[in-house]
Amino acid sequence: MTDFAATRALFDLPEGVIYLDGNSLGPLPGAAADRVARCVREEWGAMLIGGWNGAGWMAQPGRLGDRIGRLVGAEPGSVVIGDTLSIKVYQALAAALEMRPDRRVILSDSGNFPTDLYMAEGLIGALGRGHELVTVAPEAVEDRIGPDVAVLMLTEVDYRTGRRHDMARLTRAAHEAGALTVWDLAHSAGAIPVDLAGAGADFAAGCTYKYLNAGPGAPAFVYVAPRHQAAARPALSGWLGHAAPFAFEPAYRPGEGIARMRVGTPPVLQMAALEAALDIWEGVDMAALRARSVALSELFIAEVEARCPDLALASPRDPDLRGSQVSFRFAEGYAAMQALIARGVIGDFRAPDIMRFGIAPLYIGEDEIRRAAEILGQVMEDRLWDDPAYRIRAAVT
Amino acid sequence: MTDFAATRALFDLPEGVIYLDGNSLGPLPGAAADRVARCVREEWGAMLIGGWNGAGWMAQPGRLGDRIGRLVGAEPGSVVIGDTLSIKVYQALAAALEMRPDRRVILSDSGNFPTDLYMAEGLIGALGRGHELVTVAPEAVEDRIGPDVAVLMLTEVDYRTGRRHDMARLTRAAHEAGALTVWDLAHSAGAIPVDLAGAGADFAAGCTYKYLNAGPGAPAFVYVAPRHQAAARPALSGWLGHAAPFAFEPAYRPGEGIARMRVGTPPVLQMAALEAALDIWEGVDMAALRARSVALSELFIAEVEARCPDLALASPRDPDLRGSQVSFRFAEGYAAMQALIARGVIGDFRAPDIMRFGIAPLYIGEDEIRRAAEILGQVMEDRLWDDPAYRIRAAVT
Repeated sequence: MTDFAATRALFDLPEGVIYLDGNSLGPLPGAAADRVARCVREEWGAMLIGGWNGAGWMAQPGRLGDRIGRLVGAEPGSVVIGDTLSIKVYQALAAALEMRPDRRVILSDSGNFPTDLYMAEGLIGALGRGHELVTVAPEAVEDRIGPDVAVLMLTEVDYRTGRRHDMARLTRAAHEAGALTVWDLAHSAGAIPVDLAGAGADFAAGCTYKYLNAGPGAPAFVYVAPRHQAAARPALSGWLGHAAPFAFEPAYRPGEGIARMRVGTPPVLQMAALEAALDIWEGVDMAALRARSVALSELFIAEVEARCPDLALASPRDPDLRGSQVSFRFAEGYAAMQALIARGVIGDFRAPDIMRFGIAPLYIGEDEIRRAAEILGQVMEDRLWDDPAYRIRAAVT
Repeated sequence: MTDFAATRALFDLPEGVIYLDGNSLGPLPGAAADRVARCVREEWGAMLIGGWNGAGWMAQPGRLGDRIGRLVGAEPGSVVIGDTLSIKVYQALAAALEMRPDRRVILSDSGNFPTDLYMAEGLIGALGRGHELVTVAPEAVEDRIGPDVAVLMLTEVDYRTGRRHDMARLTRAAHEAGALTVWDLAHSAGAIPVDLAGAGADFAAGCTYKYLNAGPGAPAFVYVAPRHQAAARPALSGWLGHAAPFAFEPAYRPGEGIARMRVGTPPVLQMAALEAALDIWEGVDMAALRARSVALSELFIAEVEARCPDLALASPRDPDLRGSQVSFRFAEGYAAMQALIARGVIGDFRAPDIMRFGIAPLYIGEDEIRRAAEILGQVMEDRLWDDPAYRIRAAVT
């Protein structure tokens, strides 16, 4: 049994704010502030270069990777952290493509987060071997899997609608067609139970600054199934992925196992924040988290639909088909979201008309869900989105 | 005139330590601890997702890039920070190779830092188009430049010996042969005056955790000469390098200018430390820094050579041919360095026999240089390196 009142107390949330944007950037775990301060003063400041061994910085990407691995059903030694999600997707995709040299199609869906598609495009351009990125509607993915597909690259949970792919089923279909899979877990890790090993996933990548609450710019992670690790050639063959980084050999030899997916010097301060954020997850039962996420999401949908007839549910109505976010469509969604944020309820907006609300049971409860729906109801009833002040778009939205 | 007593006071160095390893990891600027703490509590904690605009996180890679640009003679708008040096070298090299499609040789020297060579190897393997990485001795580079060379990829200052290439001369030679240059400034930025624009450099990359003192795992930077920016195709085409990242378009369109070399979400906590570290550089005159670096290096060489006949200078004797480090060869260098570190003088060791000492005038003065040489003299005279305790090699050295 997970005590969600207890986990709520571990976050430093500003007074009067209802934070439904943890699917974009998770809030500050109080312990992270102390952990980062210690890392700066007692490790960097006091140990200087000695911190790489003495404070364990060098081993942290693997250690933290294993801790994330437990949250996404990965085998020990199959996850390592570092870089950004874009880079980790590129690494996984490059390795997977090389393992299917006779095939030319990367299959994805049109709702995938753009950076995954962009990185695939960049890789295809660099390779210059006639690979093709094919995107179809999410519901058409399974039918499109065929003998020309080298890699099926999907984000499990859609960043706009929260629509969830069936990882086990699509992975099976890919394997039956002789393809490999690259799963993007940006909106899965810490949001829903994930079982990479059980699903037979080949490669995966994810970020830690959303539901895992590791802070702005926190490092990404990459998963390579143990059966593929020896064959996965790192295209981004950096020194920390070398078998003996400190031998400074002139030629690259990939490290053992997942370590070869490391590239350069890991971000030590960000890893300190990640470490503190992961401590909160130690006591969390993922099934209990999921049950609570579904209950809160159902409550939010019911409350909003009862109060806001102009908002149309953009997320699947069946909770089994959703991640841990709820989205609504509204033509004036940008301005409505600004009005809502001005009243202390923080969600976000995705073009052209999606109002997104992340549901993170670690720090959001029923009272906040009800109150957020009430305030959204007021915004809609009073047509606050019609205020010109809310229509000025910021650079980053 | 730069007041080096004043800059020394801006660093939090442990009592009793003489730190000659800033060429590996710079020490903590006191203000960085406060700046990072503010970033964690007042930005991440209080502003949450609003920090991307409100605290300027999104604009920081370009802003900090320009501040670094001033230290390395780059034009405004030609430097951006992010990722690691390995990734930035890969980006620069991939873009440069595409601009010389009819040539197949990447020329480097055998003393280059391995990750540059490894990343080139990985890129060549991914491209699969018969490119070749040719490494020659540092002094043979100029003669090897010829019509088959697509890219000359060099680290300006050798990480082991401190030997410095003539950037302007080699860049000119490369251009005369129709090749492009990629300069690694890992041991140059903040160590010596660099004039990328004056030298006509094409691409460059560097790290910020050495002489710039931005902390363990601080982000790297990349330079693209303004004349190449429009033609430089990003192989690592991440969403934050897109012309309109928040339009979430399905296809990649590279951003204007240097922004296209951004990839994923920047490391906000590390950027806060970098910002504070760069504040120290605002008042520093690079010519004064260089004069003091040379004076301190000459003093260290003279003092060590007077006391330690068994140590052989590994760095060039002519200061014009050195960066800001001094290295000595000694067969038992590993153990001797451990003995030295145990006595509060921190340098480091690079296989097979190099004892390295970084000379950073911002926080090292004549007294410390004399005292370090004295203690090294004792270590050598008393054969302290013969103690078995100093021969046990740590995982990271």
